[in-house]
Amino acid sequence: MRKTSGAFALREIASLLGCPAPVVDVNITGIATLAEAGPNDISFLGSDAFVRHFRATRAGAVLVQKNVHLPETTKTPVIIVDDADLALGKLLTAFAPPSPPQPKGVDAHALIDPSARLGPDVSVGPYCVIGKNVQIGRGTIIHAQVFVGNDVQIGEYCILHPNVTLRDRIEIGSRVIINSGSVVGTDGFGYRWDGTKQAKIPQIGTVVIEDDVEIGSCVCVDRAKFNATRIGHGAKIDNLVQVAHNVSIGPHSMIAGQAGLAGSTTLGTRVILGGQSALRDHIQVGDGAMVAACAAVASDVAAGKIVSGVPALPHRQNLREQAAFRRLPDLIVQVRKLQEEVKQLHARLSPASETEKAQKKRL
Amino acid sequence: MRKTSGAFALREIASLLGCPAPVVDVNITGIATLAEAGPNDISFLGSDAFVRHFRATRAGAVLVQKNVHLPETTKTPVIIVDDADLALGKLLTAFAPPSPPQPKGVDAHALIDPSARLGPDVSVGPYCVIGKNVQIGRGTIIHAQVFVGNDVQIGEYCILHPNVTLRDRIEIGSRVIINSGSVVGTDGFGYRWDGTKQAKIPQIGTVVIEDDVEIGSCVCVDRAKFNATRIGHGAKIDNLVQVAHNVSIGPHSMIAGQAGLAGSTTLGTRVILGGQSALRDHIQVGDGAMVAACAAVASDVAAGKIVSGVPALPHRQNLREQAAFRRLPDLIVQVRKLQEEVKQLHARLSPASETEKAQKKRL
Amino acid sequence: MRKTSGAFALREIASLLGCPAPVVDVNITGIATLAEAGPNDISFLGSDAFVRHFRATRAGAVLVQKNVHLPETTKTPVIIVDDADLALGKLLTAFAPPSPPQPKGVDAHALIDPSARLGPDVSVGPYCVIGKNVQIGRGTIIHAQVFVGNDVQIGEYCILHPNVTLRDRIEIGSRVIINSGSVVGTDGFGYRWDGTKQAKIPQIGTVVIEDDVEIGSCVCVDRAKFNATRIGHGAKIDNLVQVAHNVSIGPHSMIAGQAGLAGSTTLGTRVILGGQSALRDHIQVGDGAMVAACAAVASDVAAGKIVSGVPALPHRQNLREQAAFRRLPDLIVQVRKLQEEVKQLHARLSPASETEKAQKKRL
Repeated sequence: MRKTSGAFALREIASLLGCPAPVVDVNITGIATLAEAGPNDISFLGSDAFVRHFRATRAGAVLVQKNVHLPETTKTPVIIVDDADLALGKLLTAFAPPSPPQPKGVDAHALIDPSARLGPDVSVGPYCVIGKNVQIGRGTIIHAQVFVGNDVQIGEYCILHPNVTLRDRIEIGSRVIINSGSVVGTDGFGYRWDGTKQAKIPQIGTVVIEDDVEIGSCVCVDRAKFNATRIGHGAKIDNLVQVAHNVSIGPHSMIAGQAGLAGSTTLGTRVILGGQSALRDHIQVGDGAMVAACAAVASDVAAGKIVSGVPALPHRQNLREQAAFRRLPDLIVQVRKLQEEVKQLHARLSPASETEKAQKKRL
Repeated sequence: MRKTSGAFALREIASLLGCPAPVVDVNITGIATLAEAGPNDISFLGSDAFVRHFRATRAGAVLVQKNVHLPETTKTPVIIVDDADLALGKLLTAFAPPSPPQPKGVDAHALIDPSARLGPDVSVGPYCVIGKNVQIGRGTIIHAQVFVGNDVQIGEYCILHPNVTLRDRIEIGSRVIINSGSVVGTDGFGYRWDGTKQAKIPQIGTVVIEDDVEIGSCVCVDRAKFNATRIGHGAKIDNLVQVAHNVSIGPHSMIAGQAGLAGSTTLGTRVILGGQSALRDHIQVGDGAMVAACAAVASDVAAGKIVSGVPALPHRQNLREQAAFRRLPDLIVQVRKLQEEVKQLHARLSPASETEKAQKKRL
Repeated sequence: MRKTSGAFALREIASLLGCPAPVVDVNITGIATLAEAGPNDISFLGSDAFVRHFRATRAGAVLVQKNVHLPETTKTPVIIVDDADLALGKLLTAFAPPSPPQPKGVDAHALIDPSARLGPDVSVGPYCVIGKNVQIGRGTIIHAQVFVGNDVQIGEYCILHPNVTLRDRIEIGSRVIINSGSVVGTDGFGYRWDGTKQAKIPQIGTVVIEDDVEIGSCVCVDRAKFNATRIGHGAKIDNLVQVAHNVSIGPHSMIAGQAGLAGSTTLGTRVILGGQSALRDHIQVGDGAMVAACAAVASDVAAGKIVSGVPALPHRQNLREQAAFRRLPDLIVQVRKLQEEVKQLHARLSPASETEKAQKKRL
């Protein structure tokens, strides 16, 4: 059971991808990796590195990227494509199960403050709570058990999955997706030792999430100390990410799982942060920069640069240092040997100079 | 107040553990560490490393592992056991508070789609939402405020704690425990830059959680791009763990808190991942392998191997390199000194060779 | 739109801060950074490092710390203060939006067990579930969709934000704030391989959260194996933090986002843990110690010490080793060169000694 739906003749798939149909036709009901595919699955091969999996596959057919070197003879029907990954994306869309029926209208078990204004075709699931002066744009779907605080604005055609929490006074753009368990608008983590206790610094700002953002599950986006924590349009954030107060994430940036951004840090456009990467507070990461997984970034990163490591360095420098690190235990041995040799050289020279002195005397 | 229940005579405890009763009897009402125990607590000592705590303890009695070297004279009653940890486990069970009363049947404030099929003795708490075509096996307990999407299958005798979210079309085995705040079935994090935006790649697969799995709090298990993200039977996952799309976790594996597994990575049987460890995408970790806490694993790990460090290396190599690293600042000093000495040697040789030339001339 | 409220004349702000009024008066409606401020915002300057931003700012006025060296001429009205950060805190309080209207009393859509005892002025929001024998102190506010298990004690004037989960048998002090998505009281992660499976070790202890603690969003605090996991009074915990079973966090400690504390680890008073730091199990961190962001702490930290790095070392040692690490690739080149030179020295000495021998013969 592949948990996909639909069934296609292989020639239909070829036609969908704009490719000539293979000679043999097969009935395809699912998509799988070369290793896992059965005779009614289609698989994919995008690199010579996996040709050995291709030889062994039981797949009914395989999408093969044109630059891959296939074995000369093969029984497996193939469709040659320009880009296996892109073709796979098209197939995934074709095989996608029908959209699940969405909740329609406002469920009788949702509590919506009378001052809230809902656009046409808004859905609100059971056990949701929608606060005062909330505005929700056309076509937005709010699934069950979501909390929306007072004075929140939500744009059009958003999807809030079950158990999302939006605290008071925040703004969500249009076509934004927020996945379950995420919390937007918690007070930023700001305290000041006043001599007897950690006194809370008021966090009076907001959060602005622009259009076309997707936020994963159990993500925390904190409210700004003042002004706004901002997630730029089209940015995508994976699960369990921490976005602290006054952070600004540029448009179309991609933040992988468990990454953390400390207060007031700013990302440019199309920045990529790897999984579990950490960015300290008040730094700037330029447009198109990339931070490798697990990197700990403690200073600005210029546009277009790649950094990696703990602490993060330019990626090439990090690779060079890591390669050097691999040789460090040997280096210690070499230095010990050098010390020995130099000692011997001294020893050999010393009698020599005794000889010299003796010669000088004689002369 | 120990928040435990029950009270036992020490001889009852000895009998429970199959040990001879100590000469002195004591009334035991709680369990505590050597440092924290009072005169009605029993404590435990499993290693010589803690004998100093034993000397100072106020415990009413102590479970002592047989290989520990006790002080020759001691007033504290002891019970000698083969394995202090195992004996403690038995005591914890004996002292455990009575099971809290579970919700029985379907609460009047739960919303269950008429198409859902519930086995006998299923409990569903208040403010739960159960979707279309859901199947729930015998004896499963669903606590308050849980969301179960459409087409979800849940086996027998599972426990879903409050505020768990199960998205559409996933499968949960039997005797599975999922703790509060966890989310299963979010779309995998998959996008493709299409020239103007990060276009969402459909995630049409499912999640399969096999029998006897326990999942902690605020854990995210994403839906596969195709086929299934899979958690093998008997695996245990701690809090705040990220399990990306198409990951496969082998049976009986143990994943400690805040670990992260990137897309399509595969763990064998009884793999152990330490806290905050990170595994990159598309790697394979063999049966019985161990990844140390905070390790960043960027390539395959063979069965039975232990890796540690950032980037992760075989554990012995990492220890050797770390030991070398500790000596690096000194090494730099040594090399500077060597450079100086070699310079001096050159200098000493040069006049020498001047002398030689002079001698040659004279000769 | 600054999402702040209130408007003040600059002289009112000066008066609020106990400073002489500037000559020019301005109407101030918001607070912003030097870079972002407009003509009706007040900004702040606490360090010479940002004087260049001061020169370029469009702010209507700026709070300037007295030790900052300002340009000699400036059109921007300034208020000179002893501590810009402290003055900003006062302004944030002044500009804070009016407290949102809190839920009052028990919502008709909350389910409260008849055995629960609620003090005066307790608020419980819609879709909350409050278990058996729960006690809630005066003035505590429980927002919507919160779960409180059986036998839970909550003190006075606490705030539980929406979607918090408190499991059975835990204790919360007074004036505690717990933010959305957090889970307190999950079973600790304890299993023992019994030959065929990871057998669950009963976690029979509790969690004690003392007075004046604030806990961020999606934080997990696990129940103790026995006795209690404890968070000391006045401690502040940021988002996505893992607090394992039997951990003890000392009073007024500060734990930044995504930090993790493994089982039975103990922090003293006013310990600071940086973001994404990780502490292994059973270690002790002394009063006032600091753990840098991303540090991996594997052994005790003495009171007052600062540690950083992976693995964590005393901070100065880590800086020294990191500086050495930066020089490692060069060091390898230097050692190779030394090896070459020593070889040459040997070579030069060998003919020399041949010469010597020849000379000796001749003599």
